[in-house]
Amino acid sequence: MAKAKSKIKVKKAAGNGGDSWVTYRPEIKILDCTVRDGGLMNNHNFDDSFVMAVYNTCLAAGVDYMEFGYKADKKIFSPADYGRWKFCDEDDIKRIIGGEKNKMKLCVMADAERTDYHHDILPKSKSVFDCVRVATYIHQIPTALDMVKDAADKGYETTLNLMSISVVKDSDLNKALDVIAKSDVGTIYIVDSFGSMYSEQVRDLCRKFSSAMKGTGKQIGIHTHNNQQLAYANTIEAIINGVNRLDATIDGLGRGAGNCPLELLIGFLKNPKYDIRPVLECIQNVFLPLRKKIEWGFTIPYMITGQLNEHPRDAIKLRASDNPDDYIAFYDKMIE
Amino acid sequence: MAKAKSKIKVKKAAGNGGDSWVTYRPEIKILDCTVRDGGLMNNHNFDDSFVMAVYNTCLAAGVDYMEFGYKADKKIFSPADYGRWKFCDEDDIKRIIGGEKNKMKLCVMADAERTDYHHDILPKSKSVFDCVRVATYIHQIPTALDMVKDAADKGYETTLNLMSISVVKDSDLNKALDVIAKSDVGTIYIVDSFGSMYSEQVRDLCRKFSSAMKGTGKQIGIHTHNNQQLAYANTIEAIINGVNRLDATIDGLGRGAGNCPLELLIGFLKNPKYDIRPVLECIQNVFLPLRKKIEWGFTIPYMITGQLNEHPRDAIKLRASDNPDDYIAFYDKMIE
Repeated sequence: MAKAKSKIKVKKAAGNGGDSWVTYRPEIKILDCTVRDGGLMNNHNFDDSFVMAVYNTCLAAGVDYMEFGYKADKKIFSPADYGRWKFCDEDDIKRIIGGEKNKMKLCVMADAERTDYHHDILPKSKSVFDCVRVATYIHQIPTALDMVKDAADKGYETTLNLMSISVVKDSDLNKALDVIAKSDVGTIYIVDSFGSMYSEQVRDLCRKFSSAMKGTGKQIGIHTHNNQQLAYANTIEAIINGVNRLDATIDGLGRGAGNCPLELLIGFLKNPKYDIRPVLECIQNVFLPLRKKIEWGFTIPYMITGQLNEHPRDAIKLRASDNPDDYIAFYDKMIE
Repeated sequence: MAKAKSKIKVKKAAGNGGDSWVTYRPEIKILDCTVRDGGLMNNHNFDDSFVMAVYNTCLAAGVDYMEFGYKADKKIFSPADYGRWKFCDEDDIKRIIGGEKNKMKLCVMADAERTDYHHDILPKSKSVFDCVRVATYIHQIPTALDMVKDAADKGYETTLNLMSISVVKDSDLNKALDVIAKSDVGTIYIVDSFGSMYSEQVRDLCRKFSSAMKGTGKQIGIHTHNNQQLAYANTIEAIINGVNRLDATIDGLGRGAGNCPLELLIGFLKNPKYDIRPVLECIQNVFLPLRKKIEWGFTIPYMITGQLNEHPRDAIKLRASDNPDDYIAFYDKMIE
C-alpha cells in the first residue's frame, strides 16, 4: 500500500532531470538504529526478547543495516552501570541472531575517544559485524579517522557520523570534509543531534557534503532527531538532495524526541524490498508496552532545545524530573 | 529565543534571489484555527473558558487571525447535537472577546452546501467577524464562489479553502484555478485534508497556485494535517514557495492527527510581533488537561490513512473504538 502511494519523484530527486513516479532509487539503504539510539534512554538495558523482536522486524521489513549499540571502552564505562548493548560483545549479538548471518548487515557504533578500538574491534573475519560506525564531534576528527582506518584495515565497511552538525562552523566543516574525502571511510553521515535543522539547512549541507565527496565513491547518510517534528521531513529532504543512507528507528525510538520513524520512511520509499506490515506489528506488540516503561518522542521541552539549537540534555533531565510539564519554567531557564 | 534562532532565509525563500538571515517577510500572517478544527473532535463542544483561553493566547502571541468555528445551517445541523462553535452566533463571539475588537481579525468558516449564507452571514457592519472562509470540495466550486461573492459584497475579507486537494485531478484543478482567479476571493487556500502530501507535492501546488493567481493580488494560504508528521514541514515548504497565509493550531489540536502546531511555526518565523511564550503557557495550563478528555495528534492509524491518501474518518473511528491500537487489523482492512 505504501508502495503504491509513495510520491517521490525519483529521477528528479536524484538530480537527473527526470520526473518519474514509478521508479525508485536502488542505491537508497535504510539503517535501523532503534536499539542503539533507543538505548540512550535506558542505559542500553534492553532484554534479549526486545532486541530479538527488533532484529526479526528489521529482517522481515527488508531493512539493509541494523545497529545494536556501542563498542564502549569497559575501562571508561563499567558493565555494572550499563546494559550489554553499550558494549555489544560478539556473543551477545550471536545469541540474538541465532548464530546465522543473513543479507541484513550488522553494525556497531564506536564513539571517538570512548572506544578501545585497537583491542575491542576484532578483525572482521572473527566478528558478526559488517560495519563499524564511528561517531565523532568536529574536534575529534583525527581520532575518528584513525578509528575508521583501523576498522577498514580490519575488513569492515565504515561510516563516519559527524555529530552536532548544527553547531559546526562552515570553515571548520570545509576543512573536515577535505580530510574525510581523502580517508578510507565508506559513508559520511550528517547528524542533526539537536533536532534543530530546517529543510533549507539540510539541503545546503547535503549539497556541500555531496560536492566535497564527488569522485570519491563515498556515500552520504543522514541521521535526524524529532525535536521539531522534522526528523522524517528532513530525511525526505536529504533523499531529494541525493542522500542514499538513511537512519531510522521503529516507532521513532531514540534519544529525547527520537529519530525518523521507520514506518513513515518505508511509506515514502518505493523499493519493493521494504515492507511496512512487520513494523506495524512490532509497534503494536512490543513498542506500545515499552512506552509504559520509558518515554521518548516529541514533547514541548525538546521543541524548545531544538529551536534554541541546544543539546537536548536539559530537556531529558526535565522529562525525568517531578515536573516534566513545567514548560514555562523550562523555557524561561533556557533563554536566560 | 525562537526569533534569534529562526533559520528561514527570507529573501531566498521568497524567490527574490537574496540570502539573508536577518530579515523576515512581513506579508506572512498566521491564522489560528484551534477552536474551529479542534471542534471537529468534540462536535464543537468547547466551554467558554477554553475558547477565551485560546483567544487571549492568540492575542498575546501576536496571531493575525483567529477562527472560532462554522456558520452551519441550523436546518441541517441541530443545535441540540452540536456545541455553539458549530454555528458561531454573534452573541457567543461577543461574549468571548468581551465586546471589544482589537487588531486580531476574527474568522468564521462557511461550508459549501451546509451554510444558509444569504441569511446567516450578516452584513459586516453588523458582525464581529472580519473574514469569512469558504470551505469547498472541487465539485462545489460554483456554490463556493457564490458564497465568496455574497461575503465580499457584505464587506468581508474572504478565503476559499479547497479541501482534499491531494485527490483533485490536475485538469480539474487547472479549471478551478482559472475561475477562482477571476473571482472576488482574497485568499485561496491549499488544504491537505488527508495529511498525505509530501514536500515536493506541496512545492508543486504552491507554484501552480501562485502562477494561476499572478497579477490578481490574491494571496495563497496553506492548511496542513499531521498524519505523516509533515504538517509543520509542509507549512515551511509552502513558506519557502511564497505562501503568506498559514493555518496553525495550539498544540496541533485539530481533526485526527491535528494541524501544524502554532508553537513550532512561531519558532520558525522571525517577525518580532510573534511571541511563543503565551502559547507554551496555554499548552501547559489548558491543553495538557484537555488531552485527558479528547484525543488528537499523530498515531499510527492516521499515518496509515495519510500514506494511503484517504480521508481520516476510518482512523478516527478506530481511535474511538474499543481497540484503538489494533494497527494490524486496521492496516489489513484499509489495504483490502
